[in-house]
Amino acid sequence: MEHEPLLMIPGPVPVPLRVRAAMARQAVNHRGPEFGAAYADCVRVLKTLFGTENELYIISGSGTAGMEAAVANFGRDRTIVSLVNGKFGDRFAKIGQRYGTVRTLASEWGTPLDLEGLERELAEGAEVVTVVHNETSAGIRNPADEVGAIARKYDALCIMDGITSIGGDTVEVDRWGVDVAVAGSQKCLAAPAGLAAISVSERAWDRIAEVRPFYLDLAAYRKSGTGTPMETPYTPAVPLFLALREACLMIEEEGVGARIERHRRMAEAVRAAAAAWGVEIFPTIDGRHAYSNTVTAMRIPAGITDGDLRGTVRKFGIEIAGGQDHLKGKIFRIGTMGGIGAQEVLATVAAVQYALRKSGHPAGDGVQAAAEVLG
Amino acid sequence: MEHEPLLMIPGPVPVPLRVRAAMARQAVNHRGPEFGAAYADCVRVLKTLFGTENELYIISGSGTAGMEAAVANFGRDRTIVSLVNGKFGDRFAKIGQRYGTVRTLASEWGTPLDLEGLERELAEGAEVVTVVHNETSAGIRNPADEVGAIARKYDALCIMDGITSIGGDTVEVDRWGVDVAVAGSQKCLAAPAGLAAISVSERAWDRIAEVRPFYLDLAAYRKSGTGTPMETPYTPAVPLFLALREACLMIEEEGVGARIERHRRMAEAVRAAAAAWGVEIFPTIDGRHAYSNTVTAMRIPAGITDGDLRGTVRKFGIEIAGGQDHLKGKIFRIGTMGGIGAQEVLATVAAVQYALRKSGHPAGDGVQAAAEVLG
Repeated sequence: MEHEPLLMIPGPVPVPLRVRAAMARQAVNHRGPEFGAAYADCVRVLKTLFGTENELYIISGSGTAGMEAAVANFGRDRTIVSLVNGKFGDRFAKIGQRYGTVRTLASEWGTPLDLEGLERELAEGAEVVTVVHNETSAGIRNPADEVGAIARKYDALCIMDGITSIGGDTVEVDRWGVDVAVAGSQKCLAAPAGLAAISVSERAWDRIAEVRPFYLDLAAYRKSGTGTPMETPYTPAVPLFLALREACLMIEEEGVGARIERHRRMAEAVRAAAAAWGVEIFPTIDGRHAYSNTVTAMRIPAGITDGDLRGTVRKFGIEIAGGQDHLKGKIFRIGTMGGIGAQEVLATVAAVQYALRKSGHPAGDGVQAAAEVLG
Repeated sequence: MEHEPLLMIPGPVPVPLRVRAAMARQAVNHRGPEFGAAYADCVRVLKTLFGTENELYIISGSGTAGMEAAVANFGRDRTIVSLVNGKFGDRFAKIGQRYGTVRTLASEWGTPLDLEGLERELAEGAEVVTVVHNETSAGIRNPADEVGAIARKYDALCIMDGITSIGGDTVEVDRWGVDVAVAGSQKCLAAPAGLAAISVSERAWDRIAEVRPFYLDLAAYRKSGTGTPMETPYTPAVPLFLALREACLMIEEEGVGARIERHRRMAEAVRAAAAAWGVEIFPTIDGRHAYSNTVTAMRIPAGITDGDLRGTVRKFGIEIAGGQDHLKGKIFRIGTMGGIGAQEVLATVAAVQYALRKSGHPAGDGVQAAAEVLG
């Protein structure tokens, strides 16, 4: 029972003690066999979570560094189609604009992607597609499998942001035809923030850009990562690798299937609470798009301010997330990623329910509804 | 008494328990006041160590990411003079080649920089200079003060790698005329690897490149870093910031002057041991260049292999460094950075002395010589 704030945001997430203890040990030589073994353990488990047999490397940097590595190494001077229905789709487009020619296919945040537009752009010669699998800004899961299939049909490269899905939802990089996929340490993996994992297909390696950035040059990661011991090209954030290794071992112990099912139940419990409260789930889904398995975005009921809602919840030591950019004040979001379990979800749902009622919203018994899912 | 390997390499260095304990606490919200206060504490102390009143920001990435941020934001499409007398000077040149036109002024590793050549290149119109203050690959300290003065004379920007000097040697960014300076967390600051600090002068901000990378876009760091609470543009490596804050508080407690003097004595003790062993210090210095205050590079005596020397030392649980690139097998290096004190230096000197004698080198009593400096 630590009285640190409970982060129920879409990452960074609470980090289990075992992981933090692994991080707190003394520094090891990053050019030695012990570090190499830790790196290799991470790669082994991450490949399972990615659903890939592609090469996979780890960058000391945030998920955004991983997104940029993907775009800079494989999108430079190319035409990139960016599918956008939220903040991170938009971020891919913004990164793309620094390296290539971007065709943005923008949908309203939280509404389905324009897959017909994607076919059109690819038919016209675009060479790279970017897609966000799980768009946390809007709480929607995008059909990365279909995007991958369409990209393959036109022989384009598919770059996928799996930062907030990998480890918490089914991801099948190889089966979907995703060439470059990115995960973040501080999301469903329940490790601390600061590392990005990136997998690269043979098709992508064959098309790597001639001019690449230095720190994010994936050819350098490949060169250092295929020796013995496994190394990184520049000094890695050693404690974060040791932490991620422990987090990966915990994932193996839980089992990948059980872990994804746990994530599914936690998100389902939050949605059940929202229904009981009379609070609307934000995203608009269809047969291809789904509610996120790892974060639930809901509309703030009329007459309640974001500050009141989250401020009241914070008094219980719980942090939930607001909306980003133009959704500030309009939605709130509850992350259920990583090690989050029934205990944390019940406490959070209870706090939100209290806050809603305190602000005058006639919320029904969401705690009971959530408990029924979790029980 | 932890029996983890003792890292006597030029970083990463052993991290004090206090720092590791600060790192091991539960994640805090990186958009909240608690994180902002930690970031601000780091900046306050680092500005003192940099000797600057310039703005200073922290990147989640290694020192190389900081070097690239400097070059990419201020050297793009410009003519850059790179002063090279070791691996990291060479790295600056290699980074520069991805962004601008580089004029490399190469000296033999560990020999004085070509300052006359610098004047000539600047007179011919070069706009940016890169210099490594403390070149760990060769154990030499370069005259960054003179380089800064020459750059100012020709109105060029001076970019300095202070990664292995800041916190362990005197640095006066503002007085020297250094526009952009970079420090690394895992060197003299005795924090874990994974963060780079970068200071930027007003002159440099006025000349920032129009097209910049995304993750390393310093304008984005400035925008997020000047609000309240202080933030980073992308999710930071939260535990590393909490660790660096604790390391900075420890530096304040020790006192900057005392800390630099401690580093000076540790390096002096290693050099005294080398003299007693009859082992030659590697770099060639003059009135402008000096032996490094934080790492000592020595020639491996004839008849001894690098593997034997470092292998024997490793049996005592101590890691020392070999040479890099063409100096592999020719030199060995002992880092005395961060929290390293007399205890670690004595153990290391004793282990090296044993290894030298075991390999047949008639080493004198370096342990006695080092103890006399340290006593």
